Amino acid sequence: MSAGGPAPKSEDSVLTAVQSVSRVRVRYAETDQMAIVYHANYFVWFEVGRTDLLRHAGWSYRELEAEGVSLPVIQAHCEYLLPARYDDELDVRAEGRLVSPVRIEFTYELIRVSDGVALATGRTVHVGLDRRGRPCRLPARVRAIFDAPDSASP
Amino acid sequence: MSAGGPAPKSEDSVLTAVQSVSRVRVRYAETDQMAIVYHANYFVWFEVGRTDLLRHAGWSYRELEAEGVSLPVIQAHCEYLLPARYDDELDVRAEGRLVSPVRIEFTYELIRVSDGVALATGRTVHVGLDRRGRPCRLPARVRAIFDAPDSASP
Amino acid sequence: MSAGGPAPKSEDSVLTAVQSVSRVRVRYAETDQMAIVYHANYFVWFEVGRTDLLRHAGWSYRELEAEGVSLPVIQAHCEYLLPARYDDELDVRAEGRLVSPVRIEFTYELIRVSDGVALATGRTVHVGLDRRGRPCRLPARVRAIFDAPDSASP
Amino acid sequence: MSAGGPAPKSEDSVLTAVQSVSRVRVRYAETDQMAIVYHANYFVWFEVGRTDLLRHAGWSYRELEAEGVSLPVIQAHCEYLLPARYDDELDVRAEGRLVSPVRIEFTYELIRVSDGVALATGRTVHVGLDRRGRPCRLPARVRAIFDAPDSASP
Repeated sequence: MSAGGPAPKSEDSVLTAVQSVSRVRVRYAETDQMAIVYHANYFVWFEVGRTDLLRHAGWSYRELEAEGVSLPVIQAHCEYLLPARYDDELDVRAEGRLVSPVRIEFTYELIRVSDGVALATGRTVHVGLDRRGRPCRLPARVRAIFDAPDSASP
Repeated sequence: MSAGGPAPKSEDSVLTAVQSVSRVRVRYAETDQMAIVYHANYFVWFEVGRTDLLRHAGWSYRELEAEGVSLPVIQAHCEYLLPARYDDELDVRAEGRLVSPVRIEFTYELIRVSDGVALATGRTVHVGLDRRGRPCRLPARVRAIFDAPDSASP
Repeated sequence: MSAGGPAPKSEDSVLTAVQSVSRVRVRYAETDQMAIVYHANYFVWFEVGRTDLLRHAGWSYRELEAEGVSLPVIQAHCEYLLPARYDDELDVRAEGRLVSPVRIEFTYELIRVSDGVALATGRTVHVGLDRRGRPCRLPARVRAIFDAPDSASP
Repeated sequence: MSAGGPAPKSEDSVLTAVQSVSRVRVRYAETDQMAIVYHANYFVWFEVGRTDLLRHAGWSYRELEAEGVSLPVIQAHCEYLLPARYDDELDVRAEGRLVSPVRIEFTYELIRVSDGVALATGRTVHVGLDRRGRPCRLPARVRAIFDAPDSASP
């Protein structure tokens, strides 16, 4: 698992991305009788990816919850390119961006380690909620991670 | 669980839809520590919906597989509107359409039974595969279910 | 789903049992690549069984938690006799007994509906915990359900 | 992850054990609304443990299946001592023994890495099945791993 700094920005973007890579191995429990991984389980690996991303960016989701902020998923999407199979080693590449002061979007790429082939791509959008379940601005230090220092510049 | 016939067609559509409603109750296993249902589990309910839809339309997915055709998911999407909670009774409304001779799209609406509120909407796209894992035309009787009688008319 | 009253007592027992039967259908998500249900998922069906048992005995586990009592599993056991398969309809027969003022034991039998054959038997033991996570006596009305009226007689 | 050789034998045992340790981190998907890990998921970690044990002992379960032998669970048991929580790092200590020419028993200990405390102990029994689903002797090289060289001596 490694987490890079902000990705190079394209000319027309004020958003930056924080990236990470997590390794998982397919469990028997995750397969179905088609002898491939059941599609819903890819979203669990995506969770592993963004959890690692947040941890390596300097705070853990566990701490965030302890502070009273949760980040439920409000949108989830996956494109399945090639099936993942039992015992495969996979890299979950995750990338996060603030899309508003209260929302983060993560995108994912799932890579089969043995040959570097992409098996799936995905995306989840999350909203910050306070203890009462109302949308709230993400903590400053979270915004600082995902926001480029100059993202507010003209 | 009930399955209706083809839905009324809009003027500009040659596609018809087959619809069904399935009842599920939220299991403790499906919740997470946010005290709501973990987002990936909605896709399992969608599976319950389309399985019932197919069964009531006259054939079961089990039979389809026995004949050598599988229908893996190649795209999955969900929008989470309000959280489902432990012990909630939910209706999964599923609707299917052929989007090509080898692909079916299902759309879903998840309704909380107690008050009729929609908790989520979703969509999955499936491709027919033969025993060797190659894309194949769906069996005629499957296409017949999802295809309007006049869908081939000029 | 139906819940019977206390079961006939054997001569040498002061414990009675409350029984219930719940119907589930095997989901694709629950299978694995052996084309049978993954063994851990039987415990989820057992949960469906005891939840229904409690509900039909007059209170729901949801309400119990709302009152500050949780019932975590401290022991779980299953014997697998014959595999459950995709789309099978199954009856979960559950039976509960107080084994101490703070513990309930549930036993389960999993029956394939098509032919009445038992696929598995199981057992879970649960301890009542208060809001601080300390073992606590189960609420009187819960004990009343599982305890025979004469269980305290000499 | 590491796998040791046969464990020291006690005087009155002809069985030896092969041991391994696997590291897992608790996923959000594995928690439930009690804010602890849902009990059925411990069995998934046990699977991770025995898969690693087999791989490090010289063959993989994947290969075993490719050769036509499957190892379904016929008995599963877990004692829950202290709850595992989200983001905990855990060591799954697994140990395997042949209990007959067709059966293997694995025992497990789940250790919280941060303080070395045992959270659970478990046990699963597996039977070798051939392609037709009939019990079969485990392959010689599998028996060789779990059997002491002198286990057949008088």
